[in-house]
Amino acid sequence: MTDMLRLHYAPDNASLIIRLALEEMGVPYKAVLVDRAARAQDTPAYRALNPAGLIPVLETPHGPVFETGAILLWLADRRAAARIPMAPAPDATDRGDFLKWLFFTANTVHTEMRLLFYPEKYAPGLDAEALRDGIRTRLRGHLGLLDMAAKANPAWLSPDRPSVLTCYLACLLRWMALYPRGTDLSWFSLSDTPWLHRVASAMETRPSARAAIAAEGLGATPFTAPTYATPPEGSAT
Amino acid sequence: MTDMLRLHYAPDNASLIIRLALEEMGVPYKAVLVDRAARAQDTPAYRALNPAGLIPVLETPHGPVFETGAILLWLADRRAAARIPMAPAPDATDRGDFLKWLFFTANTVHTEMRLLFYPEKYAPGLDAEALRDGIRTRLRGHLGLLDMAAKANPAWLSPDRPSVLTCYLACLLRWMALYPRGTDLSWFSLSDTPWLHRVASAMETRPSARAAIAAEGLGATPFTAPTYATPPEGSAT
Repeated sequence: MTDMLRLHYAPDNASLIIRLALEEMGVPYKAVLVDRAARAQDTPAYRALNPAGLIPVLETPHGPVFETGAILLWLADRRAAARIPMAPAPDATDRGDFLKWLFFTANTVHTEMRLLFYPEKYAPGLDAEALRDGIRTRLRGHLGLLDMAAKANPAWLSPDRPSVLTCYLACLLRWMALYPRGTDLSWFSLSDTPWLHRVASAMETRPSARAAIAAEGLGATPFTAPTYATPPEGSAT
Repeated sequence: MTDMLRLHYAPDNASLIIRLALEEMGVPYKAVLVDRAARAQDTPAYRALNPAGLIPVLETPHGPVFETGAILLWLADRRAAARIPMAPAPDATDRGDFLKWLFFTANTVHTEMRLLFYPEKYAPGLDAEALRDGIRTRLRGHLGLLDMAAKANPAWLSPDRPSVLTCYLACLLRWMALYPRGTDLSWFSLSDTPWLHRVASAMETRPSARAAIAAEGLGATPFTAPTYATPPEGSAT
């Protein structure tokens, strides 16, 4: 096995969060396309990497890691390999603050976005629009809490430098503005959360973001004024 | 501020997971009751600790930490304070494996249990039973994946010694057997996941579990054959 990290990705999928973090850290990696059109994530080979069949997976010298939040934390804690710190160290006094908002983002914001995007995966017989309506209201509240956290300008959620949580939130803000196609998207406006807006604007100008934009066809302003991706590999969904 | 940790709890709530971990680690703490009957979790004082208004919160010398998974990881990584390791260290080769299943448990299993228990909090106008039906099917699948993880007997999910993930899963298995009251509970049987059953059985016999049983009125077999809690403070819900 090589020591090179391998990121299993699909364009404009959750793997984008990991790509941004890897680019920001300057860690070498190989991106491996998961062909969603061919349902490659359901093949035995992919299920051997992630039995839940979700994207992303990061193959590491110690085996595959999945779950976006787990990969981000694992990468951030490999500090010797990184150019810059991407999270408070395990013994830092602000580690608890960082962890609680990382888990909140993963458990609550990201998970409820999945309910908004794929309600049929949760309950096939359900009134999808009724579920979406409830989730939109909740997400507005969650984003308000994160905006208050950003207002305090902690090192791990600041326009001054990115953390793995910055990478995570920039992508979630992008997707809330864009998806699901064909539904009411007017509930979301980045201007409602001015402190998160500043963080997303700063992220957008970084070399890591330019690299992700080029790799996945994200357009010039992928976090603050996103457009649908036109990836070199074809459809993003 | 004192250095004593303060666990804001309600009987048989998610705070039980943290209580078990604290007891197992032998870390001194003070349990502070959140009076759910009086909606104490909605007061300004509690919202100052956790703006999302959820239980638990752990007050630490570095400020309040919330989110069950975040508190568990924060505690596990304070290794100097613990009698025994409760998670792989940040630089251990099995850290990624542990993290991915911790996040999976928090994001997917715990979050979807909340959908099963409180569907009205997500979408007030929804057909709650239709949502529950979908979630039950998903949870069976998630538990199957965790059972396969337990079958491999990793150090962090083994009957031989508990980790913070063991504490987490033992409680989730308890609640799936018991809640929500008045709904179909027949979908869940611990015997469907024999490897998780072994982990839960082992957890049940430990002094940490006896302490939690006494503190929250959980009955003799709280994880493998649970009964409704009869806590000294009154109703658990």
